[in-house]
Amino acid sequence: MKLPAFFEEDLQAVDAALHKLLPPETTRPASIHKAMRYSVFAGGKRVRPILSLESARIFTNDVSASMYPACAIEFIHTYSLIHDDLPALDNDDLRRGKPTCHKQFGEATAILAGDALLTLAFETVAAAPVEAERRVRVATEIATSAGTVNGMVGGQVADLEAEGKAVGPEMLEFIHRAKTAALIRAAITSGALCAGAPDDDVFRLRRFGETIGWAFQVTDDILDVEESSAALGKTAGKDIAQQKATYPAVYGLLRSHQIAKELSEKAIAELDVYGAKASRLREIAEFLVYRRA
Amino acid sequence: MKLPAFFEEDLQAVDAALHKLLPPETTRPASIHKAMRYSVFAGGKRVRPILSLESARIFTNDVSASMYPACAIEFIHTYSLIHDDLPALDNDDLRRGKPTCHKQFGEATAILAGDALLTLAFETVAAAPVEAERRVRVATEIATSAGTVNGMVGGQVADLEAEGKAVGPEMLEFIHRAKTAALIRAAITSGALCAGAPDDDVFRLRRFGETIGWAFQVTDDILDVEESSAALGKTAGKDIAQQKATYPAVYGLLRSHQIAKELSEKAIAELDVYGAKASRLREIAEFLVYRRA
Repeated sequence: MKLPAFFEEDLQAVDAALHKLLPPETTRPASIHKAMRYSVFAGGKRVRPILSLESARIFTNDVSASMYPACAIEFIHTYSLIHDDLPALDNDDLRRGKPTCHKQFGEATAILAGDALLTLAFETVAAAPVEAERRVRVATEIATSAGTVNGMVGGQVADLEAEGKAVGPEMLEFIHRAKTAALIRAAITSGALCAGAPDDDVFRLRRFGETIGWAFQVTDDILDVEESSAALGKTAGKDIAQQKATYPAVYGLLRSHQIAKELSEKAIAELDVYGAKASRLREIAEFLVYRRA
Repeated sequence: MKLPAFFEEDLQAVDAALHKLLPPETTRPASIHKAMRYSVFAGGKRVRPILSLESARIFTNDVSASMYPACAIEFIHTYSLIHDDLPALDNDDLRRGKPTCHKQFGEATAILAGDALLTLAFETVAAAPVEAERRVRVATEIATSAGTVNGMVGGQVADLEAEGKAVGPEMLEFIHRAKTAALIRAAITSGALCAGAPDDDVFRLRRFGETIGWAFQVTDDILDVEESSAALGKTAGKDIAQQKATYPAVYGLLRSHQIAKELSEKAIAELDVYGAKASRLREIAEFLVYRRA
């Protein structure tokens, strides 16, 4: 399945905004800014920020305010990859075919670059050109989605602890929703919040985001089994090698495909009420679940 | 010099608030919450949150709203210690006489516990019971003070890079102001902001905080030379061993004492306008510079 046509346009707008928000490489101390920029511009698909922008587009043609949470979420996503790749965690030397941050800049700088990106995320949210009440709601959405209680860090910890253990469906669901779905949900709700979405819509998009984020991670699990390292741009089969808790491991491949499809259909049904206004968001949702890499 | 009498009372109030804001140890995944609580309750003096509360007390008798930024800053201070102690950074096994977080829980958990505390800090700020506009200003104060451009992480990076090198007065000042003074300044301004302080007072207290924070780090450098490990509760003489950029190394001990005194007097003069209302804040400021541990 090909990337939706508007992806490239959104991606370029996101990259331009990320460039503006990150301190220049020449700003003292240069090494940390080089490391932050290296990892942010290491070739990500910008799925999360594009979800922010396209959720905003349901409510407004001017999505510039939503670019702030979009970039904040990408900073958080990038920090989580930098720390996840560290020797003490997944110990990866390569990401998207390039040396990981600690391989390129050393462990100390990589740890601090991750910390700095997480910090910059909240500085960015606080600067969004919307009323303060909405900036605070966005900060709460993002902080809880990145935290330990049903959030990203909690999911990462549970994921690490599950390695090599027999994991049941309930724990598997917790890990996937916390590790991946939460931040995707926050990308969607915070994009909508900065576009002035009414509360009912924020709640609806929260359900959409939670479910599509979950389907996205189930698809990731499937691709790790079915695709080659070349297609994925990362080591395939790693989940099995590390005895990770995955949907194929617990449910088998066939049922995992069904689960991804069911979740994605359930998510996309939430968008029915928006008709053509959500056509791009619908297209991304389908891409996230039916992609092959 | 003894701790001011009100310290113990403030400290207990801060600890009670930290207990409430941290997820319980029983919340899944338990290991991360245990690690976060272990490090937050490892025996800190709570200098930063007490500065928040006592800055607030200039403007109000009810400092409960300022407890939110107070705790947020303590979470950030704790995360910075956890990450600073990691093998890739300062490689410390002990802090305040107890095993460091990574010694107790492993490196992966320590890295993630630091990340989680930094995230929780912003969730905490967003929940402060003051108008949204002030919460946003507090988030900006704290994020910039903890960031890379004249903030804590920038100071840490410059500090690491300066090890073993000849460092001039200008870089030394940058390191001390960024590494230590910035977060202390944010503790003071954000406590005042949540107490409803007018802008002029926030600016004045920013100058006070910046200068007293700087004096605090100069004093730290002096104590590392003059005091025993037993008195400090950490390894004395470490700065010299690691060839750190310090005031005694650049200016000698005598001149360093003078600088600490000059900075502290300059800082405390900012408080003159508040008369007796700032008597506690004045007392802490003097304690921070004339302490022996």
